[in-house]
Amino acid sequence: MAKNVGILAMDIYFPPTCVQQEALEAHDGASKGKYTIGLGQDCMGFCTEVEDVISMSLTAVSSLLEKYNVDPKQIGRLEVGSETVIDKSKSIKTFLMQIFEKCGNTDIEGVDSTNACYGGTAALFNCVNWVESCSWDGRYGLVVCTDSAVYAEGPARPTGGAAAIAMLVGPDAPITFESKFRGSHMSHVYDFYKPNLASEYPVVDGKLSQTCYLMALDSCYKQFCAKYEKSTGKQFSISDAAYFVFHSPYNKLVQKSFARLVFNDSVRNASSIDEAAKEKLAPFSTLSGDESYQNRDLEKVSQQVAKPLYDAKVQPTTLIPKQVGNMYTASLYAAFVSLLDNKSSELAGKRVILFSYGSGSTATMFSLKLHEGQKPFSLSNIATVMNVSTKLKSRHEVSPVKFVETINLMEHRYGGKDFVTSKDCSLLAPGTYYLTEVDSMYRRFYAKKPVDGACENGSLVNGY
Amino acid sequence: MAKNVGILAMDIYFPPTCVQQEALEAHDGASKGKYTIGLGQDCMGFCTEVEDVISMSLTAVSSLLEKYNVDPKQIGRLEVGSETVIDKSKSIKTFLMQIFEKCGNTDIEGVDSTNACYGGTAALFNCVNWVESCSWDGRYGLVVCTDSAVYAEGPARPTGGAAAIAMLVGPDAPITFESKFRGSHMSHVYDFYKPNLASEYPVVDGKLSQTCYLMALDSCYKQFCAKYEKSTGKQFSISDAAYFVFHSPYNKLVQKSFARLVFNDSVRNASSIDEAAKEKLAPFSTLSGDESYQNRDLEKVSQQVAKPLYDAKVQPTTLIPKQVGNMYTASLYAAFVSLLDNKSSELAGKRVILFSYGSGSTATMFSLKLHEGQKPFSLSNIATVMNVSTKLKSRHEVSPVKFVETINLMEHRYGGKDFVTSKDCSLLAPGTYYLTEVDSMYRRFYAKKPVDGACENGSLVNGY
Repeated sequence: MAKNVGILAMDIYFPPTCVQQEALEAHDGASKGKYTIGLGQDCMGFCTEVEDVISMSLTAVSSLLEKYNVDPKQIGRLEVGSETVIDKSKSIKTFLMQIFEKCGNTDIEGVDSTNACYGGTAALFNCVNWVESCSWDGRYGLVVCTDSAVYAEGPARPTGGAAAIAMLVGPDAPITFESKFRGSHMSHVYDFYKPNLASEYPVVDGKLSQTCYLMALDSCYKQFCAKYEKSTGKQFSISDAAYFVFHSPYNKLVQKSFARLVFNDSVRNASSIDEAAKEKLAPFSTLSGDESYQNRDLEKVSQQVAKPLYDAKVQPTTLIPKQVGNMYTASLYAAFVSLLDNKSSELAGKRVILFSYGSGSTATMFSLKLHEGQKPFSLSNIATVMNVSTKLKSRHEVSPVKFVETINLMEHRYGGKDFVTSKDCSLLAPGTYYLTEVDSMYRRFYAKKPVDGACENGSLVNGY
Repeated sequence: MAKNVGILAMDIYFPPTCVQQEALEAHDGASKGKYTIGLGQDCMGFCTEVEDVISMSLTAVSSLLEKYNVDPKQIGRLEVGSETVIDKSKSIKTFLMQIFEKCGNTDIEGVDSTNACYGGTAALFNCVNWVESCSWDGRYGLVVCTDSAVYAEGPARPTGGAAAIAMLVGPDAPITFESKFRGSHMSHVYDFYKPNLASEYPVVDGKLSQTCYLMALDSCYKQFCAKYEKSTGKQFSISDAAYFVFHSPYNKLVQKSFARLVFNDSVRNASSIDEAAKEKLAPFSTLSGDESYQNRDLEKVSQQVAKPLYDAKVQPTTLIPKQVGNMYTASLYAAFVSLLDNKSSELAGKRVILFSYGSGSTATMFSLKLHEGQKPFSLSNIATVMNVSTKLKSRHEVSPVKFVETINLMEHRYGGKDFVTSKDCSLLAPGTYYLTEVDSMYRRFYAKKPVDGACENGSLVNGY
């Protein structure tokens, strides 16, 4: 049976186009700091008319295979997590099969997993379980999280973003799962959903969604701690993990979430909380669950108390979510990528706790153990390959006016057929896939920008 | 580690409303026998305005838990396969959580798996892998396949259907997986897809879809045989399995598919094919793959040759797909249910091969081994609980005119909000869930018909 199963390699792709939140605030007539401090966001990435979740995932997968020198024939399972629906029946996974078919490999299990921002976590768990199961045939699993988050004009619009992340799964990994420590919370709620099928935009109840997120966090943490204690005989506290990584719709919620864990530890009388902090939080310990989610004083005090721990255990995970925005299924893993990028040389031997949340709702808290690993599947090589700071630096800032123009064009084209795009790939990095056409039968055609950078000669991917 | 993992229990639900294919032929002005002989279909089930994929899956899950006396707290994973999209973000699984939340169980992994008719197979594999993985916590997995297949007016309309099937997964099962014998074929094709997001109807290229299905079948069978041979050292032929179960969009394709396996065995010179049959099929052995899919003589001769084997190995799997129609993700498992219903007392020790196909495309051929098992998880009890013949007999035949009226109403309401249904549950069996309202925020409300049969007192399921 396969041992130490986990993530062997990763790559991240996000669009080269972005808008500054500060500029967007001014453009939207919002009060100064509303998006930058209120939401805690710096910048927002977005797809232009030549990119979508299919092109981004084609780019992420082909880049991972190439950069880690993995033969496409060595992939035995491929799963996609996404909530960006381009077709209600045909999976994104089948589009990705183009990469493998041309190498003669069509024997690849797995489809798309869907529930809001949680689909990527479901896909990752499925892939890990496959490697540990009797069905495993010795090949690698590959998981892709790909989403484009766009919102109708209004208060939710600055919480958009876009990215695709690919993860290679197999035994003897530098990033392994502590599978026995895991807590889930799944329930029937209408906090964020997409019932208007003709529109790309969700229906969102921002306040409810935040409460649902925090309730799910509490419930998962409770389950997680109970399983940890059952398995090890010791109480779990936030001291037992080096880093905490959260699904990040906007950074402010991540700050609130970590503070909530500190509050939980305080109520549980866990060793992680010193006497001074306990004293500050004590007045809130008698609040009912419902009251505690609405209490502004608790929110403020707990964030204050949590600040030093947040800076040490959470802040190193926040770069990409703050710079790119909410990437839905990719958001949690983009936060994890930020950590690998920021701390790769210090991570060996550390435990990292991840919290995945998808509205609707589905949530899991789980634990990873990091090891340096052997090149190419080593923490330091993963950080080198992903090359996050260069990717962020080489982006092109777009004005809010141009951003809104783009969003309007995409809104118009969503679910449409019979159009060609500009095929303008001048801003895209070499090796990036892009959308060229949607024909009268809604069939989508993509090209790949060649390494010499000339779009006109882009070798067309056979879209049929 | 868990041993002999597989399906412990099953239940099937299909709507009480159906239309005879013979009547539909006449109503549509089609030539006599076009639907009944040409497609091989007898009858078609469909949802009326009080039923949908969510209500059907609520019914199937609650019925399974009740009839096999399974405590909802004993479920640790719940996965849904479906291609009927009611919400593009919120999974059907979260609706099903209503059943478990009221019992205090929210720690249930799994979401929805999606790719056309294949999602149920993906969900089933995921659940089995979970039980075999390090993440398994000793509880049961639960898989639900739920779909409503409806088509725009035209030649595809008689290939609709609707059903939900629930399957309980765990160790020491009467229906176990021979996991090493499995072949998949995944590729990028546009044979059937749903790109028109505002419409419930797919875009279908019927001829292409049939060819894609048969090509995937050939490819999966080749992979399957190679893995069997590698594992056992023996050549596999259709003689090595007692029954073959196919995804069944319409019965005629199942006849063609089995004939195709016979043709494959003939070309491979397998022991399953006698000399007389080989002689009849020999003239076609030099056809290229592409030619062979289009060759009408081959189709005719191979079906003729396959007939005795079809009657023995396939015909016992065809009852529900012929009577209810294409149930998308549930179709393959409805065929398997037909076999359990038809032959339950003779199945112990037998091997059954299943072929799952989802357009787009994703396909897998896999092998099950049957054992009588211990009540309540025994083959004979599963057949008793499912009670297929009574369910089929108690259906209400509806005229084609009434059927078209219903379809038109559903078409109008698809993706809509702010309406109440008739709440007429007079045709539904006691214990069936039904849709009562979709409010102005698209939130859906369901009720359950009580055992005394009075709809008015149906205890409302809290839809929020």
